[in-house]
Parts: sequence; structure tokens; C-alpha cells
Amino acid sequence: MTDLLPELTPREIAPPKGKLGVLTPGLGAVSSTFIAGVLAARTLGEPPIGSISQMAHIRLGRREEDRNPLIREFVPLASLDDLVFGGWDPISPNALEAATTAGVLDNRDLGAISSELEGIVAMDAVFDQQWVSRLEGTRVKQLASKADQAAALIDDIERFRTENECDRLVMVWCGSTEAYQEPSAVHETVAAFEQGLIDNDDNISPSQIYAYASLMADVPFANGAPNLSVDLPCMLELAKVRNVPLAGKDFKTGQTLMKTLLAPGLKARMLGLEGWYSTNILGNRDGEVLDAPENFKTKESSKLGVLGTILQPEVYPELYGDIEHVVRINYYKPRGDNKEGWDAVDIFGWMGYQMQIKIDFLCRDSILAAPIVLDLALFMDLAARAGEHGVQEWLSFYFKAPQGAADSLDPEHDLFIQQTKLKNTLREWMGESPVTHSEAG
Amino acid sequence: MTDLLPELTPREIAPPKGKLGVLTPGLGAVSSTFIAGVLAARTLGEPPIGSISQMAHIRLGRREEDRNPLIREFVPLASLDDLVFGGWDPISPNALEAATTAGVLDNRDLGAISSELEGIVAMDAVFDQQWVSRLEGTRVKQLASKADQAAALIDDIERFRTENECDRLVMVWCGSTEAYQEPSAVHETVAAFEQGLIDNDDNISPSQIYAYASLMADVPFANGAPNLSVDLPCMLELAKVRNVPLAGKDFKTGQTLMKTLLAPGLKARMLGLEGWYSTNILGNRDGEVLDAPENFKTKESSKLGVLGTILQPEVYPELYGDIEHVVRINYYKPRGDNKEGWDAVDIFGWMGYQMQIKIDFLCRDSILAAPIVLDLALFMDLAARAGEHGVQEWLSFYFKAPQGAADSLDPEHDLFIQQTKLKNTLREWMGESPVTHSEAG
Amino acid sequence: MTDLLPELTPREIAPPKGKLGVLTPGLGAVSSTFIAGVLAARTLGEPPIGSISQMAHIRLGRREEDRNPLIREFVPLASLDDLVFGGWDPISPNALEAATTAGVLDNRDLGAISSELEGIVAMDAVFDQQWVSRLEGTRVKQLASKADQAAALIDDIERFRTENECDRLVMVWCGSTEAYQEPSAVHETVAAFEQGLIDNDDNISPSQIYAYASLMADVPFANGAPNLSVDLPCMLELAKVRNVPLAGKDFKTGQTLMKTLLAPGLKARMLGLEGWYSTNILGNRDGEVLDAPENFKTKESSKLGVLGTILQPEVYPELYGDIEHVVRINYYKPRGDNKEGWDAVDIFGWMGYQMQIKIDFLCRDSILAAPIVLDLALFMDLAARAGEHGVQEWLSFYFKAPQGAADSLDPEHDLFIQQTKLKNTLREWMGESPVTHSEAG
Amino acid sequence: MTDLLPELTPREIAPPKGKLGVLTPGLGAVSSTFIAGVLAARTLGEPPIGSISQMAHIRLGRREEDRNPLIREFVPLASLDDLVFGGWDPISPNALEAATTAGVLDNRDLGAISSELEGIVAMDAVFDQQWVSRLEGTRVKQLASKADQAAALIDDIERFRTENECDRLVMVWCGSTEAYQEPSAVHETVAAFEQGLIDNDDNISPSQIYAYASLMADVPFANGAPNLSVDLPCMLELAKVRNVPLAGKDFKTGQTLMKTLLAPGLKARMLGLEGWYSTNILGNRDGEVLDAPENFKTKESSKLGVLGTILQPEVYPELYGDIEHVVRINYYKPRGDNKEGWDAVDIFGWMGYQMQIKIDFLCRDSILAAPIVLDLALFMDLAARAGEHGVQEWLSFYFKAPQGAADSLDPEHDLFIQQTKLKNTLREWMGESPVTHSEAG
Repeated sequence: MTDLLPELTPREIAPPKGKLGVLTPGLGAVSSTFIAGVLAARTLGEPPIGSISQMAHIRLGRREEDRNPLIREFVPLASLDDLVFGGWDPISPNALEAATTAGVLDNRDLGAISSELEGIVAMDAVFDQQWVSRLEGTRVKQLASKADQAAALIDDIERFRTENECDRLVMVWCGSTEAYQEPSAVHETVAAFEQGLIDNDDNISPSQIYAYASLMADVPFANGAPNLSVDLPCMLELAKVRNVPLAGKDFKTGQTLMKTLLAPGLKARMLGLEGWYSTNILGNRDGEVLDAPENFKTKESSKLGVLGTILQPEVYPELYGDIEHVVRINYYKPRGDNKEGWDAVDIFGWMGYQMQIKIDFLCRDSILAAPIVLDLALFMDLAARAGEHGVQEWLSFYFKAPQGAADSLDPEHDLFIQQTKLKNTLREWMGESPVTHSEAG
Repeated sequence: MTDLLPELTPREIAPPKGKLGVLTPGLGAVSSTFIAGVLAARTLGEPPIGSISQMAHIRLGRREEDRNPLIREFVPLASLDDLVFGGWDPISPNALEAATTAGVLDNRDLGAISSELEGIVAMDAVFDQQWVSRLEGTRVKQLASKADQAAALIDDIERFRTENECDRLVMVWCGSTEAYQEPSAVHETVAAFEQGLIDNDDNISPSQIYAYASLMADVPFANGAPNLSVDLPCMLELAKVRNVPLAGKDFKTGQTLMKTLLAPGLKARMLGLEGWYSTNILGNRDGEVLDAPENFKTKESSKLGVLGTILQPEVYPELYGDIEHVVRINYYKPRGDNKEGWDAVDIFGWMGYQMQIKIDFLCRDSILAAPIVLDLALFMDLAARAGEHGVQEWLSFYFKAPQGAADSLDPEHDLFIQQTKLKNTLREWMGESPVTHSEAG
Repeated sequence: MTDLLPELTPREIAPPKGKLGVLTPGLGAVSSTFIAGVLAARTLGEPPIGSISQMAHIRLGRREEDRNPLIREFVPLASLDDLVFGGWDPISPNALEAATTAGVLDNRDLGAISSELEGIVAMDAVFDQQWVSRLEGTRVKQLASKADQAAALIDDIERFRTENECDRLVMVWCGSTEAYQEPSAVHETVAAFEQGLIDNDDNISPSQIYAYASLMADVPFANGAPNLSVDLPCMLELAKVRNVPLAGKDFKTGQTLMKTLLAPGLKARMLGLEGWYSTNILGNRDGEVLDAPENFKTKESSKLGVLGTILQPEVYPELYGDIEHVVRINYYKPRGDNKEGWDAVDIFGWMGYQMQIKIDFLCRDSILAAPIVLDLALFMDLAARAGEHGVQEWLSFYFKAPQGAADSLDPEHDLFIQQTKLKNTLREWMGESPVTHSEAG
Repeated sequence: MTDLLPELTPREIAPPKGKLGVLTPGLGAVSSTFIAGVLAARTLGEPPIGSISQMAHIRLGRREEDRNPLIREFVPLASLDDLVFGGWDPISPNALEAATTAGVLDNRDLGAISSELEGIVAMDAVFDQQWVSRLEGTRVKQLASKADQAAALIDDIERFRTENECDRLVMVWCGSTEAYQEPSAVHETVAAFEQGLIDNDDNISPSQIYAYASLMADVPFANGAPNLSVDLPCMLELAKVRNVPLAGKDFKTGQTLMKTLLAPGLKARMLGLEGWYSTNILGNRDGEVLDAPENFKTKESSKLGVLGTILQPEVYPELYGDIEHVVRINYYKPRGDNKEGWDAVDIFGWMGYQMQIKIDFLCRDSILAAPIVLDLALFMDLAARAGEHGVQEWLSFYFKAPQGAADSLDPEHDLFIQQTKLKNTLREWMGESPVTHSEAG
């Protein structure tokens, strides 16, 4: 059986020396919670719970070998001590005020790190209410043309890099969900997109301008919202030309996380699915934004995709050929950032008998999203140092609507396959054999 | 990368010719539902939903190869048409009356197959109320010594084999949960056990007599209850001596199924677990049996093990080092066989913030168990033909408390690793490469 | 203390001799279930569960007196044996086909009464898709003017009365929810309304034409939907002129029933309410109709009113001054007629500490509505024989949005006060003292 | 109709001058939360949410009269400013430490009142581990005889009265649930009980010694636990002899509160009940105590009574003649004082069709109990000043297992009838007519 575990050659990966700047368009609930947690980890030694890069172990070799290091000791990641933070926001002046307004964290948890948070001042945002009708931006770049906005963002990035003496940068979108759109001609090529910036093309959204600026500045870009940003031909082209990694989209946090746990389980057991009704109630800024139908449509589209890909109705028409899948999001003020997701799942088994599963998830949006921001920042930086560019499909683990590496194959939604993919990718990069869980392996 | 997919030599597996007899100690709700569903599948063409052996596909090779056959077309399983059914029961006279009493299936679903069901007459059981205080057996072998009972069971088996012209047999325990016990001296060796049978040793339970008879008759044995039956040194010795496969224990149906979906998901995301409270209400014979504290203890012990093994508190003390895990089962008549499981799961994430998950599973015990009986019967028979003996760890997918292949390693509880193990084992037997889900594979 | 229980003079109430015709605009799920249940009660002796008029007892006098007759033995109600049924429907040809299509009742429960149900043939409906966009009517009166439609309905009523030799008739609206509207000038007076019928005024909906026809034919009218029908000045005027009772509106079945139980309880204990989020999923014709925003608005308006009236925010601003009340209804096919209502209730108590209540009600819409139809039919007939006319506020017990007797006072929503009002009204009519539950009474 | 509202003569009630001492056996989670809330109300003006005596209005006369005063402005209650607090506890040294240990209130809510809380020092308790096996008392009176213990308590009471210059006292039991017991001969008469105190009769529990001491000191006694304390012939005799009011038993807080809301609602609508399964999880001292089977039995007995009395199975055998009622309490540490109650309610309606209600109540035990302590203290004092003695049935509103005034009639469990009884009793005492909610009244 030794032939199952062949000698593998590790990748050459540049070491993570110097500072890594983490830039977030959007300095609101998610990014301020992310920053606060990293500061608490490095100042107070609190464990960064929920972060795979920091807390998870990875098994190497056969079970009997008992090699099980922490991921951060296995692959050369940037240290938390080397992170510096920056961001843009149309509303929050700094990370402390963002955290206080969001109300995610108790004041007692902000105390020890409040001056550091206050020092992270938001840069003026590229923002357009046309894309987020429920928000009013006050700290917004007053520039007529989208080309000027892109140039201003690139300037911001370079200034940040210099002022903070960063060796490398990554950008993670933590802003709001934009109104729904389909790709159009302006998104076809880099040339068309750059002409569109000059022409102020209506089809170019702010998140696309950030993505463009990021790639132009050779900064890897991860998209935490369901916006159409880097899943566009022009951005794939640009990533290839400039040799920059990208990933997306839409952080997999509460209800969809649960869905990508349960659906693979139902399928593993060949239980049929008649319908899945999901409702979410939340009372934060995100909830307000998504109360607008055009923004909800973007989110809904991201959330609806998950079942079809996991369950393969084309392979299992008797089990999954006629699923009623409904997703609703309602703004409900009392919940604040503590999103509540309620799912009613209608399944059927042996001889067609019906069963029901109800799940009530009293979760916390930003608490679940923050460690994803950290992991994406560190893994995107790793990918860049490993010479990767384009879509990082191995990070689909973190996304509601993972962006596939190639057009011919559907991206994977099953959380457990995504996890295996992530870990086996790291194993391969480091010259370790993949784990197969067979009797032999 | 070709070296990742080396040429593999398939096993020699004897073809499944002739009839396969499926014997169930216990001819109650589970086994009558199992039999009814198989009859409905072969008579009426109804899909055997929930059966992996019948309905699941298996991917072979790389994703791009698009090879994805049904498992039953990939490995040489017995056909449903070749199954014949037999069983023992202390109460039910035949499978039709068992099904009617259980109330799992509607009368309209029994109609077309009722005479076939009625023809499956229960053999008198080896039964002792000392082990199941809440049941009163009336169809019980009146034999003074346990050695005589074992001999009578072996006679039953051989008579069944002859009368039904079976080429092969398998036995799947579908009876009640017995009172709690720890292994004792009588279970140490085959010799000690056989002496105990003669001496009517109090530590030998009915399920152990069935297991012994099964192995002595060279019939693979799978244990669907949490009883101490084949997870005993004497049985492992016997299985080795007689070259017979065995597997156990306790069908993974409702709440534990859910637990083995969710717990790996929480761990995949490095979310901490503070506590997990599970309550079950059910109103069937199983519920009555488990209302007795000594029988509940057996079940509880089977159910409690799952979290520790999946979550690895020794590796993740900050996340899983102090879990409050409570499991309760209550008899509640209105529920009948429609077991309802309610879970309250207390988790914590980034910066220690707490979240809650509540799951209400309105499931059906026998509907979930029946396809497991089918799969175990077919896969155990496959294993025997493939020359396997002893614990079939690759079938841990089906069990609440999987029996490990070797003492040195904990058995796997994570449903997704179990599934990978099952499929990769089949791939290996057939000379196909395991699937790794890495970028390359 | 005797002065607390003064001698009272009973009303003169005409005895319920002869047949009572029950006419339902809408012969769908609710009315066919209602009719089937009454037929089952009088043919098979099945108890009419959920019917206060048939099953409830009423206490008379002091507790010590132990007088506790059935309501139907206390007040002179029509007997179930004297009911005859008729209805209009734009889709169903007869009550049997309506019941079969609705799928509320199992076939085995329709068997014994199927020919009787089939004999109840629907009259062609007054229907206009403008008011119910999701339905397509095929059995519709083809009459150009609304005045002609009203005349045709009056003809239908009189023909039914004659052909079935009815002594008396009542009408209970069991049709769909119409699109939202506010009262307009045409609803101000009988004269304006009649002119509007001639002019085909767009503001006159089908349900108003039924209500008008009913009152003109001296038939009491109860409104089971949230439609604007008899809660209009013109209808109140007409009821007064013709001396006919009316009542409305919107049967109080699942979620609102629960709300009118819980909200009085929270208030009784002076617990504060921060928010109440209600979602409903259902997959019947009603669900389809309510998926249209303009029809949902009518229903939403009926459902939202309940909390304010019960909780009196003007009296208790600290507890109920700022309630977030959200109601959603979603069409979800797998549910069929088995409506599921999920409520998340956020309350606060001593020192402002927050608590949560979640209620999942797996109910059945028509099963809950059917006995209300029966009770309203019988009590409206009683009211008519007791010489009542106009709004019967004592029947507010049955309605989501009870129609108040007078403009100056809000109608009562608290289910327990409504119940007391209903029973004390009956007591007064029969010359019995009201019950006070004081130490003395 | 004027004869319905006769002139009534108000009671003579002594005015509440001077200080009212509130004594609680048990100075743990409930009583420290109660005291903290009263202090916060009088120091910081926070509303005493959940207190009917402080926050509820009461309607007087007909609806049209619009007379709706606060209860505390209608009846002559002691003012919060006049309350002084004392208690006994076997563990807590003072109210601040009790509050901190209990963890019910956040530290920020204790800050402003912490020195006042610390000043409320617990007197040594009469305690016997035989009755509460899970607790170990350290601050316990070391007195051999129960007669000596009673005398010591009476001394404590009188010393407290003098030192705090109290005009009047009341006692409210806030201690743990004792082991289950049935009344025995020693409880038959005052003479037998006093002999039993001398003889150290095993059947006399600590709570009975408190009750005896209270009545002997002419202090009204309310029983917040399910213990057998004042529902004993000897205590009723003593209350009569000494002219002291008493009330009990077992504060109606979470799940039973919900049950007494829902059950009357089901009955009001004549919906049948097949079963009601209730489970509670809690992680406070109360939870630990109730994990002992003999203490759980006391609580279970208190909780089980409620459905039968409300639903009257003898009157409604078709609806409530065969209810499966199961109540479970499980200690589950993560919950702390935040008790979670989960109910599965199985109902049936028209034509016997089944429906289900699930209720998950994330409540807070002490937060719900604290205002009950306040109300009972004030209303018991009112009753004493109004010349009442013996069982105060009008306070059954506050109790899970209300103690009936007379043996011949069952006590009322329906929360809404209880509320009416409470309010109408106050109306009568003040010379106002009871409210009937009839059309006339």
C-alpha cells in the first residue's frame, strides 16, 4: 500500500516577513469585530475562536503516525502580531465608533483595546446610494468619475502601504450587499471595464471599483458579500495579467452554514427532500440594507444556489428533483446583530414517509464572520506568496456562493468536501500526502 | 500528478449467486418495516429511499472523468429479488401482525404485500425478561440452559437455510435494548463463554446467544442495538476463528444522526461547545423498554460517546474541554413510532460570545432504521464474499457507537469521514483510486 | 350578597323550528370541511370538536349551585339535523370535489358521506380576478353590471330558500381574501352603494355584493375573511333598516388565536413586549392568494391590529409603547393546508431583563376554521330570532379583527374577555346572572 | 340595567402607615433579585416590571366611564419606600453575595445598590439536609430540637421587627423545594404539631417550622415553593386561631405560566388535548436541588395538577378524558438561572384531526419570580389590614398549585379567571362593582 503515499515535492512559498496590511472596504460591525478580536488575541491572549488558521490542527500521514500540528505551525502564515488594519466606510469614523454603534461586543470587551480601535480611522468611501438605498453615506469621496474613484482608492492603498511599512497587503470586502445585477458588456474585458470607469457606466458598482483597485495594486481580494465583484470576466483577466489571487463570495455564516452541514448529511443518508423554508430575522445595518428588495435579491440568489449543487437533483431526481426552496430575510429591530435563522425542512425516507426538521439558530452575524475575515486575509496572503493567482477554490469553505476555478465544473458547496479540499491543498503545498479515510489511508 | 492515482489491483470477490437469507432477531417495528419496504420495492417498483446500497452513486476517478455509477452497479451486491426473510420474536407471530401493531406504515401501504408479510412467521425467541423488564414474551423457547438455547438457534438457522434454499445468510439484530452491563470474565474467551452457556451464567444476555449462534453458523452478524453483543473479546476471537465479519453497534437514526452531522460542522468551523442537551420522546415498544433505567443506561452510554470522539477535547481543550452533554429519553404515548428529538446546543465563537441552536426533529424511528438494515445485510454479505472477517469498521457510517477495528485507535464518529471511509473502501476493493477532494484530485 | 345576583328577565327568542339554510360564498377547503364535519356528526355521531355551540358547557349561578348545562341545551339553537347547505364557488363544482382538491380530509373520512357532499352543487360565483389575481374563476356569473350580479345573488338565495324549504337562512363568507382597499365614497350610504352597483363602481368588490345581497334578503351575514365587506357605513345602515344581524371579520384560527392567548397573559403578568415576529407558511389556495402583495396587505392589516388593542400601549407605555410587530405569510407548497406558524416573541421583565418565547404551531387551517363556521351560523341565527340587528360584538371571540359595536370603543381582542362576553351575553338573554369570579360570585 | 351595578359598601381597611418588613426564608437567587429590583425602583426610578401591584391598572365601572386607576392608587398598599428586607439562608452571608453567586443580574445593575444589598445580612437558617440532599448548609442554627428551632425563628422575627421599627411584617418562602411528603398525623392539629416539634418528629420539615413561627408571630405567610407548608390542617387551624392570612403554593413562573395561558385557550376553543410533554433545563441551585428524585417529585406533583383542573376531563371526556401529561426537569449547567422550558403539545380538532404546538421559552427564573414576591408581600399585608385570615384564594393568580379556600371546591388554575378573581376581589373590598364583560357590563 505504500504506493498510496508517494513522495511529494513541496511548493516554494516565500516566508511571511514584515507587516501584512488588511484592508476592509466597510468598517462596520464585521470588520470592527474582526479587528477587536485580533487585538484581544495579541494583547490579552484570548483564543481566536472560529479561526481555522489559528486554532485547527491538521492530520498528516496515516492515523498511526500521530502527526497533528496546528495549521499555523504547519504552513508559513503571517503572525497576528504582524497584522495592521485599515478600511473605508461611508458612515463610521473609526473602528471604535463602528464597534460601539454595531453593539456586537459588550463595552467591557472593548475597554482594554479601545484606544487602538480608535486609532484605526476609516478612509472616505467610494459609495453610491443607488446601490444601497437604505444607507446614507456621509464620509464619501466627492469625485465625479468612477475612474477618479478607482485612482483615489489606489492612492489610498499605496499611502497605507507606505505609512504602515507593510510588506504585503490583502483586501477583504466587509461592506454591504449591493443591489442585484447581472453581468453586462462593460464587465467582459479589462479594456471595456476601464472605458466604463471613464464613462461612468451605470453597471459598475462601488464594490467593483474596489476590486479593480485592489487587483491593480497587486493586492489579493476576497469578497465577503454576494455582490458581483470579482466573479466577472474582466476581473479574472486582470487577476491573471497581474498574477493576483482572488476569492468569493459571501461569507458563509449562520443559516447557510447550517444548510451546508445538513444537506450533505441528508444526501449521505439518501433521504429525500421535499422542501426547505428558511427565514432570517435580524436588526442590524445589514438587515436594513436587505429590507430593500433589490438588495435582498442579490442575497437570495447567493443563498438559493447551495441546495442544488450539494444535492445533485440531476443525479437523484427521485430524491431531489422537486425541491421547494424558499429563503426570506426580515428586518426585525429587537434582534440587533443577533441574527436568528429558522428553518423548516421537509424530508422523506423509506417508502416515502415524511419527516420534519426545524432548526432555530440564535446566532451572531459578526461573531461568525470575524474569524472568516482573519482566515481569508492570512490564506490569501499565503496563496500570493505561493505564487497562486486567480480564483482560490480551496477557500470555498468560507463562502455561501463559492466562485469556481473553471467554468466547466460547479463549485463545491458541501462543507465537508470544502474542508477536505482546503486541508488537502495545504498538505499538497507542503509536500504531504492527501488524507483519504480509506481503510488503508 | 499521475502518481497520485496509481494502478490498483481489485479484490477477488465471489459473485452473489443464489438466495441471501436475512435473519432478524426481533420481528417488530424495524424489521417489519424493512421487509415491507423491500417487498414494495421489488413488487411495486417503489424506490428504497434511504438505502445507500440501492440509491447512491459513487464518483470514480477525477471529477473530469464523469464516472459516477450507482453503488449497486459498481460492487457485486445481492439483488433485492434474491432476499428471503426470517426472524425471531417473543411477541409478534408474523411480519404482518408486527407491522400492524407497530403502526409505522399506513394500511394502504400494507395492502398489496400483506399476504407475503403474513407468510413470514416468527420463530420462537430466546428471551429473558431479566434483560428487558418492560416486555412480556409469550413466544419464547422453553429451554433451561443457555447452551440449549444457542443450539436451538443454530438449528433454526440451518433449518431456515435449507428450507429457503439460501446460498448465504446474514443476521441483523433488530430487537430491543437490553439492560446495561459491563463485560465480565465469561466474555474473555470463546472457551469461557461456552462454559458460561452451559453454566447458565447470569452475565450472558440473549443478544449474545444470538451473536454466538450466528458466528458459529458462519453467518455475519450486525448489531442494531446498543447491547453488548459482538463488542466482546470472545466474539472477536470467534469471528477470527470462523472467518466471519461482524459490525456494530446501535443504528444511527434520528438524534444521533443529527449530532454526527452538526458536531463535525462545529468543529470544522472551530466553534466552541459549552453544552448539548438532547431529549427524545417516543411512544413505541422501544420507548417502553427504554423507560426502564437499566435499559436506558445502555442506550445513554451509546449516545453519549459520540461527541467526545468527534470533537477531540484533548486536542481542543479551549473549545471542547468542558462540555455538558445530557441525553434523555422519555416515553410519551401520543408520539407512537414518530420519535421526536429536541436538542438545545450551546456554542461559542469569536471572543467567547455565545450562540444557541435548537433542533426539533420530528422523525420516524423505523423509517430511518429500515434502509440501514437493508444496507448492512447487503454489505455484510459483500464483505463475507470479499474474504473479510472481524469488525467491518468501514460500516461505522450506520452506527451510533461504531465498533473500532483495533483497540489502539478510536472508531470514527464523524458522519462525513465515515461516508468517505465507506466509499473509499469500496473503491479500493474494486481497484479504483480513493477520492481526496484536493485541487489535484 | 344576594343583591349581586338580581332577578333578570329573559329575552323573547323565537324557537328554531324548521330548516336553517347555511350559505357560503366560497365552497372550497373551509366550507367543504365544515359541511363534511356536520354530516359526519349527524350521520356517524362524531363529536363536532372545536364547536363551542355544540360541545361547551356554561356555568350558571354560583359555583356551589353546580349548574353547568351544554350551551346547546341552554339556548334555543337550530339542531344540526335541521341544517341544509349551499354555496357559490368560481372553481369547485360541488362540495365533494372541493374537499378532494383541498386535501384537508383523508379519503377514508369522506367515504361514508361522499354522495351527500357531491349533492351540494356550487352555484356560479360573482367573481372578479381584479380582486384575487392568483385565482382563475371558471364557474362565474357572466353579467355585465354589478347591480345585475347582486340581483342574481338575491335570486339564488330565494331559490335556495324555496327549493330547500328553509325557514331561515344565514350566510358565512368562506371565500378568498380580496385585494386591499380603503372605504370610499361609494360605501358611505346605501343609496351611494346602490348607485355604485349600477355604475359598476371599481371600489365595489365581490364580497360586498354578497353582503349586500344577503342583507337585502334579510339573511344574517358573517365575514370570515379580512375583506372590507360589512364593516362599511352603507352595510351598517342597511342592517339597521332591514333589522338583520352581521358580524366580522376574519376567522381567528392559527397564529392569531395563539397571539390572543399569549398577549393577554403577558399583560396579565405585566411583562413587557419588545417585539413579535410571526411568519406563516402554507401551501393551499389561500397561500397562493396571499402571495400576491395586495391580498397579503388585507390580511396583514387584519393580523397586525390585535396586539395594540390587547396591550393598550397608551396605558402602558413602559411595557408596550414601542413594539416591533412583523407579520409575514409565505407560500410553501409542501405544507398544503397544514399551515405552520412560527412566532418569535421578545419580552422583558423585572429590571428590564429580556426573555424569548418561540412558538411553532403545526396547525390545520380548515380544521380550525370549520367549527367557527358552524358556531357563527347557529349564533347568528339565534341573534336574528332574538331580535338583534347590526354588529354582534359578542361574537368577536371568533374573529381576528372583530368589528366593534360602536365607533367610540375599540373592539375587544383578548380571547378570554371575548369568551366571557359571549357567555355572559347568552346568560343575560336567558335571564341568568353574569359570572364575575369574585370571591362572592 | 342599573340593578346590575348595585351600591356596594367598601371594607374597612387599616391604612399602611409605618414600615413593612418583608422576611424571606431563603436569601438566594429569587429573594436577592427581588430586593435588588425594589432598591433599583426606589433609588433609580426603574419600573418594577412584572409587578401587578405596582404597574397594572384596574378598570372601574362600565367601559364608558373611563375610570382606570393604577391598582396601587386604588387600594391602600404599603409604599415601596416603606419596605425593609430580612431573610434566612444556610449558604449566602448577605443579599449582595447571594446576587453575585446567583448570576441573575449583571454587575452593572448591582453597582449603585451594592452597599444596600450587602447590608442585608442573612440570619442563620433552620435547615436539614435530609430534606434537600443536594445542598450543604453552613450557616445553620445548631439547635437540637425542632421546638427550639421554632422558638429561635420567633425570636429572630421579633428582633427584626424591633430593630427595624416595623409596623407590620410578612413572610414569603423563597427557599428550595423540599423532598416529597404526604401529610401525616403530626399535621392534623396545632396540638399534634407542637408535640411533634418537641419530639423532633421526622415528618416536620424546615419550611413547616418557618410557617409555624410566622403564624405564631402573627405574620402572614406565602409559600413560593411546592413544599407542604401551610396546606396542612394544623396551619389552617393556627391561621384561624391567630387571625392571620396565608397563601400558596409554588410561584407560577415559566412553563406552568405558559400552560395556564394555553390550556384555557384550548378549552375556550373546545380543542381536544391528546398529550402535553414538558421539559425544563436549568443550571442554578434550584436545578441542582430538583435533580434529586425526591425533590423533583414534590415539584412534579405541583406541576402536574394544573391541566386537570383547567380542562375538566370529567365534563369533557371526549376532549380531555385521556391526556398524557409528562413533566421533566433536567439540570443542565450552561443554562444557569436562564431556565429553558420546551413543550410539545398534541391537540386535535374538527373530525379528530391532529395538530401540534411546540413552545420554547427561554425565560429567567428569578426575573419572573421576583415581582411575585413583591406582589404577595404587599397583597398579604393588605389582606391582613382588611381583616382577612386563612387562605387567600384571590391570590391563586401567583401560584402553580393554588391552595383552595374550602375543601369542597377545586382551586382555580386558569390564569384569566384567577386574574378576574384578583381584580374583582379588590373591587369588592373598595366598594366597586365587579366587571362582567357582558354587553351590559
